[in-house]
Amino acid sequence: MVIIMNVDATAEDIKEVIAVIEGAGLQAKVMEGSQQKIVGVIGDKTRLASVPIDALDGVEKSVEISKSYKLASREFHPQNSVIDVAGVKIGDGTPVVMAGPCAVESKEQLFEAAEIVKKAGAQFLRGGAYKPRTSPYAFQGLEVEGLKYLAEARERTGLRVVTEVTTVEAIERVVEYADMLQIGARNMQNFGLLKEVGKCGKPVLLKRGLAATIDEWLNAAEYIMNAGNPNVVLCERGIRTYETYTRNTLDLSAVAAVKHLSHLPIIVDPSHGTGKWRMVKPMAFAAIAAGADGLMMEVHPNPAKALSDGPQSLTPENYNEVMRGVQKISAFMKAEKITSMDI
Amino acid sequence: MVIIMNVDATAEDIKEVIAVIEGAGLQAKVMEGSQQKIVGVIGDKTRLASVPIDALDGVEKSVEISKSYKLASREFHPQNSVIDVAGVKIGDGTPVVMAGPCAVESKEQLFEAAEIVKKAGAQFLRGGAYKPRTSPYAFQGLEVEGLKYLAEARERTGLRVVTEVTTVEAIERVVEYADMLQIGARNMQNFGLLKEVGKCGKPVLLKRGLAATIDEWLNAAEYIMNAGNPNVVLCERGIRTYETYTRNTLDLSAVAAVKHLSHLPIIVDPSHGTGKWRMVKPMAFAAIAAGADGLMMEVHPNPAKALSDGPQSLTPENYNEVMRGVQKISAFMKAEKITSMDI
Amino acid sequence: MVIIMNVDATAEDIKEVIAVIEGAGLQAKVMEGSQQKIVGVIGDKTRLASVPIDALDGVEKSVEISKSYKLASREFHPQNSVIDVAGVKIGDGTPVVMAGPCAVESKEQLFEAAEIVKKAGAQFLRGGAYKPRTSPYAFQGLEVEGLKYLAEARERTGLRVVTEVTTVEAIERVVEYADMLQIGARNMQNFGLLKEVGKCGKPVLLKRGLAATIDEWLNAAEYIMNAGNPNVVLCERGIRTYETYTRNTLDLSAVAAVKHLSHLPIIVDPSHGTGKWRMVKPMAFAAIAAGADGLMMEVHPNPAKALSDGPQSLTPENYNEVMRGVQKISAFMKAEKITSMDI
Amino acid sequence: MVIIMNVDATAEDIKEVIAVIEGAGLQAKVMEGSQQKIVGVIGDKTRLASVPIDALDGVEKSVEISKSYKLASREFHPQNSVIDVAGVKIGDGTPVVMAGPCAVESKEQLFEAAEIVKKAGAQFLRGGAYKPRTSPYAFQGLEVEGLKYLAEARERTGLRVVTEVTTVEAIERVVEYADMLQIGARNMQNFGLLKEVGKCGKPVLLKRGLAATIDEWLNAAEYIMNAGNPNVVLCERGIRTYETYTRNTLDLSAVAAVKHLSHLPIIVDPSHGTGKWRMVKPMAFAAIAAGADGLMMEVHPNPAKALSDGPQSLTPENYNEVMRGVQKISAFMKAEKITSMDI
Repeated sequence: MVIIMNVDATAEDIKEVIAVIEGAGLQAKVMEGSQQKIVGVIGDKTRLASVPIDALDGVEKSVEISKSYKLASREFHPQNSVIDVAGVKIGDGTPVVMAGPCAVESKEQLFEAAEIVKKAGAQFLRGGAYKPRTSPYAFQGLEVEGLKYLAEARERTGLRVVTEVTTVEAIERVVEYADMLQIGARNMQNFGLLKEVGKCGKPVLLKRGLAATIDEWLNAAEYIMNAGNPNVVLCERGIRTYETYTRNTLDLSAVAAVKHLSHLPIIVDPSHGTGKWRMVKPMAFAAIAAGADGLMMEVHPNPAKALSDGPQSLTPENYNEVMRGVQKISAFMKAEKITSMDI
Repeated sequence: MVIIMNVDATAEDIKEVIAVIEGAGLQAKVMEGSQQKIVGVIGDKTRLASVPIDALDGVEKSVEISKSYKLASREFHPQNSVIDVAGVKIGDGTPVVMAGPCAVESKEQLFEAAEIVKKAGAQFLRGGAYKPRTSPYAFQGLEVEGLKYLAEARERTGLRVVTEVTTVEAIERVVEYADMLQIGARNMQNFGLLKEVGKCGKPVLLKRGLAATIDEWLNAAEYIMNAGNPNVVLCERGIRTYETYTRNTLDLSAVAAVKHLSHLPIIVDPSHGTGKWRMVKPMAFAAIAAGADGLMMEVHPNPAKALSDGPQSLTPENYNEVMRGVQKISAFMKAEKITSMDI
Repeated sequence: MVIIMNVDATAEDIKEVIAVIEGAGLQAKVMEGSQQKIVGVIGDKTRLASVPIDALDGVEKSVEISKSYKLASREFHPQNSVIDVAGVKIGDGTPVVMAGPCAVESKEQLFEAAEIVKKAGAQFLRGGAYKPRTSPYAFQGLEVEGLKYLAEARERTGLRVVTEVTTVEAIERVVEYADMLQIGARNMQNFGLLKEVGKCGKPVLLKRGLAATIDEWLNAAEYIMNAGNPNVVLCERGIRTYETYTRNTLDLSAVAAVKHLSHLPIIVDPSHGTGKWRMVKPMAFAAIAAGADGLMMEVHPNPAKALSDGPQSLTPENYNEVMRGVQKISAFMKAEKITSMDI
Repeated sequence: MVIIMNVDATAEDIKEVIAVIEGAGLQAKVMEGSQQKIVGVIGDKTRLASVPIDALDGVEKSVEISKSYKLASREFHPQNSVIDVAGVKIGDGTPVVMAGPCAVESKEQLFEAAEIVKKAGAQFLRGGAYKPRTSPYAFQGLEVEGLKYLAEARERTGLRVVTEVTTVEAIERVVEYADMLQIGARNMQNFGLLKEVGKCGKPVLLKRGLAATIDEWLNAAEYIMNAGNPNVVLCERGIRTYETYTRNTLDLSAVAAVKHLSHLPIIVDPSHGTGKWRMVKPMAFAAIAAGADGLMMEVHPNPAKALSDGPQSLTPENYNEVMRGVQKISAFMKAEKITSMDI
């Protein structure tokens, strides 16, 4: 941390700043600027996490230098992590695909979707059994019944199952039926939930919050990892901006940013990221070209009848076309050794 | 809901849209535009909450007309709600003040803060026992011990206690010790938690999410009310924008918007809203002038030693000055019958 | 400026950074952190404005310490500036009011508006003769004819005239007829225009850009001041956020921020800031309570017939009510010595 | 346009709304909802551009149905436009590349850059002679001298020249030396400038504003087209969000949105879009995969010595690598008929 003092900070102010830093077991070094003094802090930064430097007299602002996350940081773990989910590897250079309906609505709907998803070459079946919905009057999910259908669909197809968990109480059940637990955007900073999935023993897919910075997102991953679970995969799903044409603004540069800052794999969800099925194909292609480790997409046997997120769900035909393109582009880039990011 | 068809929507497309609407037990009316057809939907809108109109062929977009929340809406409850919290009324025309440290750190710190807060004329003591922190390495709160200190401070001062609850498991304990439960910004769409505080029997202070629209916020209130708890007070605490000088952008126009859209009281938190203690005074004055039903402010006996949010905490002296101004402006406006909002 | 090096920056990298700094005639000081080295830069920062420190090998990021604006900064001009506009003082502790229609539409409309504005106690008549409109098909203003009506209205009422200038070519004419030139939000970074109004000899009202940071806004003021015109008044008019209920999000904390960072006066436009006439009153009161040096509001004899921005224009009755409240609150705060900001 | 009335709008209110619509020469149709009435407007919408429907009593809100731009809209021009710039086609299915330094700094720097750019296979040389800079103290460009170097570089390499024009006065000179005029992000709503480049006779590259919606952007194109110049190419260059890791958030979904809404070509600038040279490669690949008609990138013979935007400029080596990947991916997708967008 570097502490920038006011133009008119007194010698007393600086003495107090140094005292606070040393009181936390750290070292302080003062540097004389032309107009302002600067105080550098040396030592283990986590000791300062609860010290309100900015509240001290004469302090203009403080600037973080090292990251507040460690386990999730590439600085301390230079190699890419490859996460194994029931035998499927995420982050090994071949993109994975997670597809399926937004919500599990019925056995028939799910099994039909699973067949479509499997046939086109995905590795994971997605589908919500617990649905976080803006309005209390919208469909809230089939809960345990939905989990059972997902597990059955796995039996029939061999697909891995990834599904959202929204409460601590539900973790145990979701662990029982799913291969990977998803933390949704609205729960990215539900720290109680993060700590508990950190102890659940299964890999976690952590979606970026609606308005989360990349730094907050990696800190959320740190919560899970710090609780004992190193198997975290990140998922970019669009952020909130002033633009209203799309449901969210898909931030594909987050793929490159995460690859630089962290060793964790990152996949992209162009369905939630755009809110329009028509935009899923171009954004899926773009995500692969940008170096994403996989995709999550919504497919519904009949989007017009979907109980949730119909407008962004692909029909089976569209989905097949997206998959063909994704596979071709991905294979070509691998064959030609076209790498998106030199970390 | 009004459904706007594409310029080249076919007669078949329109037939299908009508069929879907009627299938949900609603009525459809087609209107001929110069270039496009429009389909109006008549009937109880909640029946359409799960129908993906936008996914139907030929549909350009659909536009909501009535609100998705009802219990929280002024349309169905024209009179202002006054919420009684252990005898203190919120929303009756006299602003309340909730003040105290960001986090309960020790018995001494809390008692000292409580005395300051009481003396300057607040009605509520605030203080976090469960702290949601971005980094897992930051101070996470004293938990039950903190709750006990809060209850003790109430005994000593007569102040009501408002404190945050971050997990379903903690609700029972917080209910035992506090007069009002706070749902923090990061949990505004933690729907499991909202449903449970909806059953807890105590009033709830619902902070606006980091990037929540007013509509989503009122829907979050609807979750609590729909679960049986009508005693919800809203709290504007700043939203996330591109501006970096302030921690958040305090959206005071939300006070006027909420007054127009809802009957629920709304208070303002200028401490989190700005992140700088120096801006608390002007924003507190502004909130009162805008018609807010109260304020929530951070006060710390010694901000420079605070374990959380020191930079935005007022010293006792600053706090006293803010309170004097708030009380004077508020009393003057009441005496002169200067009303901020004609609903 | 402080330069933060990568964890794995080499001694070579640091040598190069130092060479670049010294090459620009500045001094460099290296500080050893626990993981990273930091390089401080000492001397006149404007010399580094064009040096791409961040592009050097081994540099993680650079952090600005001193501000890039000087003439607009309070650091170098600790006293509040009071701007005199044809005898009316802005920034002397008594808020001014600028009111009138969004656009000058006809002689009758403008004269009627001017009478209303004058009678309720404003000092300035506002009205657009050159209108920047999103669509080329919307009303673009009466141009010179509109300027003449404004000047005539001044003759009749004694009000000062403030009006927008959108092109360099129009400056000369606007200077001829108006007392104060307004730079609109869309032109806040039209640097050619800023430089020219910097030479025009009349005071300038500089609106904040749609998505401008406070730092960029003060740099825009710096352009005008650096061209020779110290008479700049800032106007907060709402920024662009994801919230759609209001046209913009009025950032009242910008009043406090500007008062802290700069000596220039700042007024607030609650009409554009909210886009809804119903919200003008509470936001006008709030702006005054927050310490704004004045208000700009849209009033129209008949908003329902306005050619521009009708939804946010006050009727004469509403305007009178807003003015009464503003004057009372302002006078009360002055009498009671309630100051919003201790700079 | 559809007008949604309040729950308690009176028969009088509705009569007035109808009168206003009919007064503008349009037709009104009233539709009875369960709670609210709706009024549909039929006829040429541009007639309503200046009528403040939302200000009428009893109106809740109005909703646009048809677009406010026509010449730029795909609705009235279903085929893709191909823009010819001195013989180079933009929008014909083969992506073009515009590359070069951010600013023209010297003859040597520009010629060196031009050689690099040419050799790797670009069609356009970019370079700013007029530089809009946030601070008045930063390098403002070589102006006419810079234009001359650009024209000389064209002679030497055969590259087309695209360069920014920031003022009306400079248009004539830029037209003399350049093949394509660029309107920068800060001037996207400088309507005076848009109208004049609409008459200049050369193709225009229109960058998206810092915080412009896609709708505003297409309306800005409409200004140019309406003034007589149909040769407009759009350029996505990142939008302003709360994320601070990147300079802007590159909105690649805008490529798909623009392709759907408009017939104009769209290219992508990953240099400004990210602000970090390391992210240019993945975002360039992604843009091509998303279906962009081209790229604009910053290349500098020695980024560490650049007078502007060094941190986001590619070295010659990096640039060559980006170009190789872009060409391969683009050629592969064309050969395999992998289309990103089915309009």
